[in-house]
Amino acid sequence: MAAQLETLASFNSFKGIVSYYSHASAATNCEMTFAVYLPAQAKQESVSAIVWLSGLTCNHENFITKAGAQHYADEHGVMLIMPDTSPRNVNIPAAEPDYDLGYGAGFYVDATQVPWAKNFNMYGYIIDELIPLCQRELPIKPGKVGIMGHSMGGHGAMVLGLRNPALFSSISAFSPICAPSQVPWGDKIFTAYLGAERKDWLAYDSCDLIAKGAEHLPLRVEQGDADQFLNEQLQPELLQKACESENYPLDYHLRRGFDHSYYFIASFIGEHIAFHAKHLTR
Amino acid sequence: MAAQLETLASFNSFKGIVSYYSHASAATNCEMTFAVYLPAQAKQESVSAIVWLSGLTCNHENFITKAGAQHYADEHGVMLIMPDTSPRNVNIPAAEPDYDLGYGAGFYVDATQVPWAKNFNMYGYIIDELIPLCQRELPIKPGKVGIMGHSMGGHGAMVLGLRNPALFSSISAFSPICAPSQVPWGDKIFTAYLGAERKDWLAYDSCDLIAKGAEHLPLRVEQGDADQFLNEQLQPELLQKACESENYPLDYHLRRGFDHSYYFIASFIGEHIAFHAKHLTR
Repeated sequence: MAAQLETLASFNSFKGIVSYYSHASAATNCEMTFAVYLPAQAKQESVSAIVWLSGLTCNHENFITKAGAQHYADEHGVMLIMPDTSPRNVNIPAAEPDYDLGYGAGFYVDATQVPWAKNFNMYGYIIDELIPLCQRELPIKPGKVGIMGHSMGGHGAMVLGLRNPALFSSISAFSPICAPSQVPWGDKIFTAYLGAERKDWLAYDSCDLIAKGAEHLPLRVEQGDADQFLNEQLQPELLQKACESENYPLDYHLRRGFDHSYYFIASFIGEHIAFHAKHLTR
Repeated sequence: MAAQLETLASFNSFKGIVSYYSHASAATNCEMTFAVYLPAQAKQESVSAIVWLSGLTCNHENFITKAGAQHYADEHGVMLIMPDTSPRNVNIPAAEPDYDLGYGAGFYVDATQVPWAKNFNMYGYIIDELIPLCQRELPIKPGKVGIMGHSMGGHGAMVLGLRNPALFSSISAFSPICAPSQVPWGDKIFTAYLGAERKDWLAYDSCDLIAKGAEHLPLRVEQGDADQFLNEQLQPELLQKACESENYPLDYHLRRGFDHSYYFIASFIGEHIAFHAKHLTR
C-alpha cells in the first residue's frame, strides 16, 4: 500500500480480507477512515467494486461487521468500499449533541454554511477523493463502480449515482430517504448544511434529480413495510411517482414485515450484490 | 408465547424471525435475556435447535447481529438459541470493573463463593432452566439439541456438552479456552467463582472431562492461527493431546491467518451449522 493510505487493521474474512484504512482528506480537512473488503479473486487480478454508504450514527464498521456481505462479495468477486458517514474530530461543538446532525450524519452533501463548510463535504469526498484514491491504490478493474447504501446512505447512493452516471454502473438502496427536501430529516440537515434556500437543496434530492431528467442507471430499492421511518422520513411513494413520470425503470421491492435494521439489510444484501455484479464492467 | 417468557422485540430476518425474550431465572436470581432465531420452517413444524454460547463481554445480541448465521439456519431448518453470558444488575460491585470477571463473564459455571454463588450459575441456568424452558415454549422437535460457542463460550459448549450427552447431539467451538484450569483466565475466574481448590475446577475443564472418559459426542473445533489469545489462553494442543490419549475423535480445523474476531466466526459458521444439522435428530 502506498504511503497515502495507512492500514489500521486487517482481518481474514471468508475467502478475502477486511482492511481498515485512514488517509488525510482535503475535502473534509481531517483524517478519514474507511473499510475495504478484498475478495479472494483480488489476490490474483483486478476486480469490480461497489461503494456502500451507511446511515445515521454509523461509521465504516457497521456494514462490514453486520451485513454478512462478504459471502456474496466472494461469490461475485467484487470489492466492497465502506466510507465513514462524516468527518470526525474537527472541533465543531454543534456536531456533537444530535444523532442526526454533525458526526455520523454527513448526509453526503457539500456544506456551504458556517460552521460546516470547511469539513462536512462528504459528496466531494467520496466522488473526487475516496473513489479515485481507491482506484489508484487498490486492485480495481478499470470501468464503472456500483453504489449502494442504507437510509441516509440510500439517499446518498441515489444522489451520487444519479449525478455521476459516467462513474457508476448501478445504484441500489435499502430504506432510502427518497425526497429529503420534503421530509423532517432533510429540512433540519439541509437547512444547517446548505442554508434556508430550498432551491439549493435540490441537487441532493433524488426525486428532483429524476424529475429533471437524470440518466437512467439501473436502480433497485428495497423497503420494509414495518419500517418505523417509512411514512415520515423515507416516502418511497414520492420516488415511485417521480420514476413513473419520467419512465425511469425502478426495481422496487416492498418487503412484508421487515423494519429499518441491519436484520433487513442482511436478509437482502445478497440480492443487491448480485444486482450490481450483473451491471458492473466485466 | 406463555406468560413465562416476555417478548422484548422481534425482527424479520432472512426467512425467519429473531426474537429477544426475557424471563425470571431461579438459577441466577435475576431477569435473564436471550435471543432466538426461528427459521421459516418453524412456522409450520417443530425444528431442531442449536444453543450458541458467546464469549467474554458479549450479551445475547452479538452472535445474532454479527455471525450471519440466519442464512444457514434457514438452509438447514434449525432454531438458534442465544443466552446472555452472565446474570445482570444483581448488585455485586465486584462484577463491574473487569471485562473478564462478573458481568459478561459468567464462564458457564455454578459459583460456590461469595459474592458470586447467589447469581453466577450459568451452568445450571442453561442446562436446567433455559433449555427446558425453550423446549416447553418454542417449537423444538423432541430429541437432542446441538451446542456451540466462541472463546469462553467455546469452553462452555464443550463443558456443557461433554457433561450432558443425553441432552446434546453434537458440540462445536470456535477458539475455545480448552483447558481453563491451566491458563490465566481460568486461574482468575475459577479462583473467584469456585475457590482456590484446583480439584473443584475440574468439572469445568474440557481436557479433564475427556481424560476422565467423557462420552464421545461429535466434536468440531475451529481455531485461527493468528488468534492473539492462542498460546496463552486457548491452548488447543492440550485438547488435541487429551483427545488422542482417549481416542476421542476430534474434528479440528486450524485456519491460517484468522484471528479471534467475529470475522472468523462468520467465515465458518455455515460449516458449523451444517455439522450440527447432520447430527441432530431428524
